[in-house]
Amino acid sequence: MSKNLLVAQSGGPTAAINATLAGILSAGLESGQVGKLYGGLNGIKGILERKIIRLDNQLNGQAGLDLLAATPAMALGSCRLKLQPEEITPDVYATIEDIFDALDIGYFFYIGGNDSMDTVVKLSDYFAGKGKDVRLIGVPKTIDNDLDNTDHTPGFGSAVKYVVTSLIEVYNDAKVYGDKSVVIVEIMGRDAGWLTASSGLARLTGIPAPHLVYLPEIPFDPKQFIESMNEKIKDHGTVVVAVSEGIRLADGSYAHISAQSSVTDAFGHHALSGAGRYLEMVIEREIGCKVRSIELSVLQRAAAHYASKTDLDEGRMVGREAVSLALEGKTGVMAAIQRVSSKPYRVKVVPIDIRLAANTVKQFPAGWLREDHALSEEAIEYFLPLIQGEAVNATENGLPKYFHFDAKQLAL
Amino acid sequence: MSKNLLVAQSGGPTAAINATLAGILSAGLESGQVGKLYGGLNGIKGILERKIIRLDNQLNGQAGLDLLAATPAMALGSCRLKLQPEEITPDVYATIEDIFDALDIGYFFYIGGNDSMDTVVKLSDYFAGKGKDVRLIGVPKTIDNDLDNTDHTPGFGSAVKYVVTSLIEVYNDAKVYGDKSVVIVEIMGRDAGWLTASSGLARLTGIPAPHLVYLPEIPFDPKQFIESMNEKIKDHGTVVVAVSEGIRLADGSYAHISAQSSVTDAFGHHALSGAGRYLEMVIEREIGCKVRSIELSVLQRAAAHYASKTDLDEGRMVGREAVSLALEGKTGVMAAIQRVSSKPYRVKVVPIDIRLAANTVKQFPAGWLREDHALSEEAIEYFLPLIQGEAVNATENGLPKYFHFDAKQLAL
Repeated sequence: MSKNLLVAQSGGPTAAINATLAGILSAGLESGQVGKLYGGLNGIKGILERKIIRLDNQLNGQAGLDLLAATPAMALGSCRLKLQPEEITPDVYATIEDIFDALDIGYFFYIGGNDSMDTVVKLSDYFAGKGKDVRLIGVPKTIDNDLDNTDHTPGFGSAVKYVVTSLIEVYNDAKVYGDKSVVIVEIMGRDAGWLTASSGLARLTGIPAPHLVYLPEIPFDPKQFIESMNEKIKDHGTVVVAVSEGIRLADGSYAHISAQSSVTDAFGHHALSGAGRYLEMVIEREIGCKVRSIELSVLQRAAAHYASKTDLDEGRMVGREAVSLALEGKTGVMAAIQRVSSKPYRVKVVPIDIRLAANTVKQFPAGWLREDHALSEEAIEYFLPLIQGEAVNATENGLPKYFHFDAKQLAL
Repeated sequence: MSKNLLVAQSGGPTAAINATLAGILSAGLESGQVGKLYGGLNGIKGILERKIIRLDNQLNGQAGLDLLAATPAMALGSCRLKLQPEEITPDVYATIEDIFDALDIGYFFYIGGNDSMDTVVKLSDYFAGKGKDVRLIGVPKTIDNDLDNTDHTPGFGSAVKYVVTSLIEVYNDAKVYGDKSVVIVEIMGRDAGWLTASSGLARLTGIPAPHLVYLPEIPFDPKQFIESMNEKIKDHGTVVVAVSEGIRLADGSYAHISAQSSVTDAFGHHALSGAGRYLEMVIEREIGCKVRSIELSVLQRAAAHYASKTDLDEGRMVGREAVSLALEGKTGVMAAIQRVSSKPYRVKVVPIDIRLAANTVKQFPAGWLREDHALSEEAIEYFLPLIQGEAVNATENGLPKYFHFDAKQLAL
């Protein structure tokens, strides 16, 4: 009899992670080689708590799968649990094995970022050590795009599309008064500047924004910042800055308010604000012109209302191909995206050793952001295909319509 | 010979104000009764500086008008200048008269909010006093929806659509971990809670968010807030709060960090943050659970990438009808929207005395937000028609495509 399939999601939400889930489920259904389809709620943490539900009887055919693929955030919920090594918590591994046995799981798919890939490393080592044929596949997602050995990650393209479009809209909003003013747009990516740098695509529409771009990979120099800012204000009047939440000063500390001052409020908090507010304060103090900071916050990872069609299509494709890899007998691999060419844009999904994706951070290449803060040709060629097409979400009565699983009936 | 037309924009940007401009220009062109079409740059401030350009020779036909209508912010720029009374600055009025004479302006359209309508009051009084046949028409726009004697204002519907959709996305993002957490969404509207209240439409999709809603019209009680919050956390785990930037304490002061504490930072600033951050601090101090605040900032007024089709259509219609009113001989009026019925939704444009719209603030009706922070049936019936349809912006290469006027060649 066919073995069953278990899938779970982990880490931070994206607009494309449910597209990958939809891809896994449809490939599982269509293969004819998989038994039941199960979903673990709240990632490996929920699986340990036996929060597992049947999915195949809830999908409502192609229409349901399509709606799931366009639903943002995570239909199965998430967790941020990193497994301890087996030596330290043998019970945890034994529990997982018991649960997999009870449900006759032959295929496990974990959709997530580099911490989630670490879970796949540990579980595939464990099951291999037991000599059990459970195929464990990592499936990438993260808006940070910082996973190694994959051209990019599903979820990133939609975040780029939202960030660039929002930055263009913000610039158009800021310039209406024609006076001197600065807008700081703070973008996610604590350790890697991919998403912040991608905002540079805005310049392809003929506008000068973002005029300045600051990434975690390049130490932030406040003096140089003021000099560049004064120059840009003189030349343009309205200046838009794209800054990563993770910019650091020369000493390695984050460029936050708390990093620069001993500010505490009546409630005794230190870290009142992040990089955007920090730059805002620097400008108020050193230049004194009109300034506003905007934190794109979770909006940039949740905005299914304007996802990249290319991203959702690829998210689904990666899910489908991950199932193919498992059915071919692969385990301990991640379904990675390999770019065949940029013009025309073509990619394929290849298996890579899961160890090559876990626990590392792929940084934005030095040289892809030029001296004048414009993107290099190579960077543009890399980013641009990822945002092609608009995958507008389904609506009902003018409001977004999402797919929901019924999570009440647990399988165990 | 036909008199010429002058149009300008004023106040804060919206996603629909260029739709109204497109409506005015197309009706002017099609009427056969209007000569040249001029645009004043940066509102009445720019007109006083003779920054006026020809528009009719730049429109590129229906395609150009359609692109203009879907372009956010303000194609003619804006200002925040409020005219002094004629007795105080007679030169200002004489200058405007000279400029209108020089360009043979017979029709003037000012697209803006209640401050802009005040400009139309003063200019129509002035020209009437001179016995000159210049027809001055106010054309409404504001995301705040606080103009009196119009059912609603163009720009509001698109802001509602963006705010509700973003709030739903934020809720879906927040609930993935299944733990206790609060997200505060700060929404624009310093003096009126229309936009913040409209976020309550999210509940129509079956979710409990926004769980709590706070408006400027209702004094904010921190004790009651903590009580309600504890209850919602107990019942739901994940709680989303919609709060207007303009909420005030019982003593009338804004509920900002500076209103509650003597916090100053290393740079000597007092008003470090607004209502959202204030609620965040209150929750951190009094409840201590995970909390995040998100300020929708200018994104909510600039998001042409997901505008309401109904809103853009109406923006255009109001512009067209404003021209009809002027051609019928009306002056000193605003082209107001009158709702004929909600089911089916039908509106018409009617002239109202411009004095009835200037310098007042229409507040959100008491009773439309229920005790349980849900919208009343009446409120839902009011809001829902305004967000129907998605007017996705034009794109090129995956990036938004906007209309731009060439502002280099001045008419005078």
